[in-house]
Amino acid sequence: MDLKEAQSIVDEYILQFKEGYFPPMNNLARLVEEVGELSREMNHTYGPKKKKASEDQRDKSKDEMGDILFTLIVLANQMDIDLGESLQEVVNKYNLRDKKRWTLE
Amino acid sequence: MDLKEAQSIVDEYILQFKEGYFPPMNNLARLVEEVGELSREMNHTYGPKKKKASEDQRDKSKDEMGDILFTLIVLANQMDIDLGESLQEVVNKYNLRDKKRWTLE
Amino acid sequence: MDLKEAQSIVDEYILQFKEGYFPPMNNLARLVEEVGELSREMNHTYGPKKKKASEDQRDKSKDEMGDILFTLIVLANQMDIDLGESLQEVVNKYNLRDKKRWTLE
Amino acid sequence: MDLKEAQSIVDEYILQFKEGYFPPMNNLARLVEEVGELSREMNHTYGPKKKKASEDQRDKSKDEMGDILFTLIVLANQMDIDLGESLQEVVNKYNLRDKKRWTLE
Repeated sequence: MDLKEAQSIVDEYILQFKEGYFPPMNNLARLVEEVGELSREMNHTYGPKKKKASEDQRDKSKDEMGDILFTLIVLANQMDIDLGESLQEVVNKYNLRDKKRWTLE
Repeated sequence: MDLKEAQSIVDEYILQFKEGYFPPMNNLARLVEEVGELSREMNHTYGPKKKKASEDQRDKSKDEMGDILFTLIVLANQMDIDLGESLQEVVNKYNLRDKKRWTLE
Repeated sequence: MDLKEAQSIVDEYILQFKEGYFPPMNNLARLVEEVGELSREMNHTYGPKKKKASEDQRDKSKDEMGDILFTLIVLANQMDIDLGESLQEVVNKYNLRDKKRWTLE
Repeated sequence: MDLKEAQSIVDEYILQFKEGYFPPMNNLARLVEEVGELSREMNHTYGPKKKKASEDQRDKSKDEMGDILFTLIVLANQMDIDLGESLQEVVNKYNLRDKKRWTLE
């Protein structure tokens, strides 16, 4: 899936509703909620605290990552940010800045 | 930018270093750190607490979103998750589940 | 409740179990999970997204804050940090540093 | 330090300024920012990513925990929540609910 296309799909999805975009600080809180749910899943997968027998045993990290990405796209849309550009700039930054912090194979 | 391609670029970037991927719980903490930095930026843009005169006045939300997406891709890579699929499934879920919670235009 | 006493109560609670303290990064993820749950509650109270009819309508922010504080105490205990001291130092810092950023009544 | 007293100290501190309490969702974002800063510190202490030579090498987790607690108290104050009560209820809940999930020494 292309990031620009994903931003359009999410925009169309939200704008079909009268409520439209929630205020930015509410969408940020939503992002935090989703990161919390990923933490919960990863804690079960990579930590000593197992799920209760009554809980769904499946690792739902994949779903939670989808929720995080969806909410990030919502925030980017309403702040008029091109996520593909953001990511490209981070990759460029790491290629320049961090090259010397680690050991090349 | 295509998500699958982005996952490859990040994988190649990381695997060129001897250190490779950090443990998942450390990458999760990194994600939380980046979400905290976005919160800081958004609080300045959408809240009453202005930046100190000594601070960079530019809204760096775009950079922070790039950092969040990069870190999410790192986690997805090491947990063998296809982010494009995750996002597609979220969009499908919302189209089915939430249609009735909001008011169609 | 006194913070030092609270740290003792939590320590005794945890040390009665063979498992003892979880690794620090797992307890950090737990903290993030609890902050996510508070975000969810506050989003319902202070935002446009109402709870589904099937959900508990009560504002559970009080419970979530208790969970956050409990988890923070767990982390402080295992990193040998005195939370009362930490808080005192923050209050001192604010009294010195931020006095001039705001308008006295 | 007593939690009730701490809530009073923070309240007096904030009410001396004309700006008073920030909106709740902004204070929540502030809490997330502080949790992000703790994550950063803990990642250095418990992970493979060392600080850059130009960075302060001290573990600032103690300061960050103070900031988290301060911000949590701010939120509790403005939502009229008694944190000592919240914590007591969590301890009670754990004593009843989780006793059987772990192995007594």
